[in-house]
Amino acid sequence: MPLAPIFTRLGLIGIGLIGASLARAARQFNVVGEIVCHDIDPQARRTALDLGIVDAAYDQPQAAAAEADLVILCTPISAYGEVTAAIAPSLKPGTILSDVGSVKQAAIRDIGPLVPEGVHFVPGHPVSGTEQSGPEAGFATLFDSRWCILTPPPGSNRGAVDRLSEFWSRLGSRVEIMEARHHDYVLAITSHVPHLIAYNIVGVVDDLEKVTESEVVKYSAGGFRDFTRIAASNPIMWRDVFLNNREAVLEMLGRFSEDLTALQRAIRWGEGDKLEALFTRTRKIRREIIAAGQDSDEPDFGRRQAQAAAEEEATPDR
Amino acid sequence: MPLAPIFTRLGLIGIGLIGASLARAARQFNVVGEIVCHDIDPQARRTALDLGIVDAAYDQPQAAAAEADLVILCTPISAYGEVTAAIAPSLKPGTILSDVGSVKQAAIRDIGPLVPEGVHFVPGHPVSGTEQSGPEAGFATLFDSRWCILTPPPGSNRGAVDRLSEFWSRLGSRVEIMEARHHDYVLAITSHVPHLIAYNIVGVVDDLEKVTESEVVKYSAGGFRDFTRIAASNPIMWRDVFLNNREAVLEMLGRFSEDLTALQRAIRWGEGDKLEALFTRTRKIRREIIAAGQDSDEPDFGRRQAQAAAEEEATPDR
Repeated sequence: MPLAPIFTRLGLIGIGLIGASLARAARQFNVVGEIVCHDIDPQARRTALDLGIVDAAYDQPQAAAAEADLVILCTPISAYGEVTAAIAPSLKPGTILSDVGSVKQAAIRDIGPLVPEGVHFVPGHPVSGTEQSGPEAGFATLFDSRWCILTPPPGSNRGAVDRLSEFWSRLGSRVEIMEARHHDYVLAITSHVPHLIAYNIVGVVDDLEKVTESEVVKYSAGGFRDFTRIAASNPIMWRDVFLNNREAVLEMLGRFSEDLTALQRAIRWGEGDKLEALFTRTRKIRREIIAAGQDSDEPDFGRRQAQAAAEEEATPDR
Repeated sequence: MPLAPIFTRLGLIGIGLIGASLARAARQFNVVGEIVCHDIDPQARRTALDLGIVDAAYDQPQAAAAEADLVILCTPISAYGEVTAAIAPSLKPGTILSDVGSVKQAAIRDIGPLVPEGVHFVPGHPVSGTEQSGPEAGFATLFDSRWCILTPPPGSNRGAVDRLSEFWSRLGSRVEIMEARHHDYVLAITSHVPHLIAYNIVGVVDDLEKVTESEVVKYSAGGFRDFTRIAASNPIMWRDVFLNNREAVLEMLGRFSEDLTALQRAIRWGEGDKLEALFTRTRKIRREIIAAGQDSDEPDFGRRQAQAAAEEEATPDR
């Protein structure tokens, strides 16, 4: 027998890649009753309705938030303050208000002070995504086997945290509770700085005078193409991430630049042993990521990889 | 009717990922008669024989080169001089000698002066690979739809270049002829620097005190995991690439660091418009890579993606 819905009405504020994936997953796994949304872009609202992934799409955020018992902000971080101010008067007591943004201290700073009494604010961050944008890019298994981090501020309602955890679990996610500051520090290195570096190298390539675009495209299989994927992610979302996680990102960038300078020096002076030592050390973490099933967005890929790795280890003479 | 073999005997010096893939592809596409190999590692020779991908595996390189009419060096670049000196006396006149290394000026510098009269030296570089190493990692479709760059020095035998081009074409590759210096410059940015940056960020993560390894693995789906893949590549091969393409790599690293410093400054001073402008510009090249079918190592992926992109463009109202 399928499990019963946890929420009566899910209100999604913003129906891009993440909002649309939430709508699809919440419906497929029967986690909510009704699903409504708001988006500032009329085309996105129309697409969401055409795809049949929401029951209603409103041009005002308060219309999507009123009567909902779970409201999730899926907008860029820079819209949080304005959107929360708009919906606050319509939120029913007992409603859970959450978000999916990549910087949790900023969510607490911008949303927290505007949350009405009786509404439970539990910030969240599903660590998953693709380089695609827009409601047509959403898919129901985006959160499957991925981690979702909740960062409830001190004094948060325990029951609300538990219900939101259950919501994400039902979508296939593994849920972790973490302090917002630590979240932002960990994500700076596992997500934010990798994106910045990818954007940066794609920019360097774009500026080269002696290499044609056609050459770059043809020979991108040598490694560059892996960077272009994440450098194709939503520009506004990522702008907001960097502006709002400044401290942690700058610390990580400082470390990155120091180490890169040391590598540069090793290349200039022909210190092959230093290069080899680093290149050998970095192989280990790859194996762990594969073993943990975090290697691909393809839903069953992780499990298959982990199984293959286990079988390989069990094979003698390898 | 299948095409006839182009060469009677292929001698592979080194039977790692690339050598083993060449052996499998050459057999599958019926491009050569016999296939023999040398590897300095007895285990690799044994594996190649056990897999049935070579007809013989010799512990001396000259044994694999004698009687071959195509000899391809598939060793790390640092072994080129020694190996060429060892096989040179055994090479038959008319034999084509090639390699698969990622730095072509170094191949010409280390191999060129040792090539006996009557032997045709045509350096080559298939722009494809995976992060795996060893003969068991090889597969026949590794070169399918990828580019193979040949960099014949001035005065090279035209017929030899044509025959080697045909060899690679028959394995599924698209062949390009290029000047060695330009090759090294283009590959520095499409392959070498991306690898160095990936190795570097994985090293930074490994050194962090406040983030556990388990956290890195769990949240690597946020972007970091894409870097760990290429940072798991063969350490010796990559050490040699950086030591041998020093000039071009250092130039590209200089540009990368300058641009990264500018981004760092934009983040520190909250210049969102600069970030957004870069992040928007970098999306374009991704679309071109997908359209060119260079998006994935999965053999048919590129063609499917290109087709899907064409269909999407043909769909109105998107």
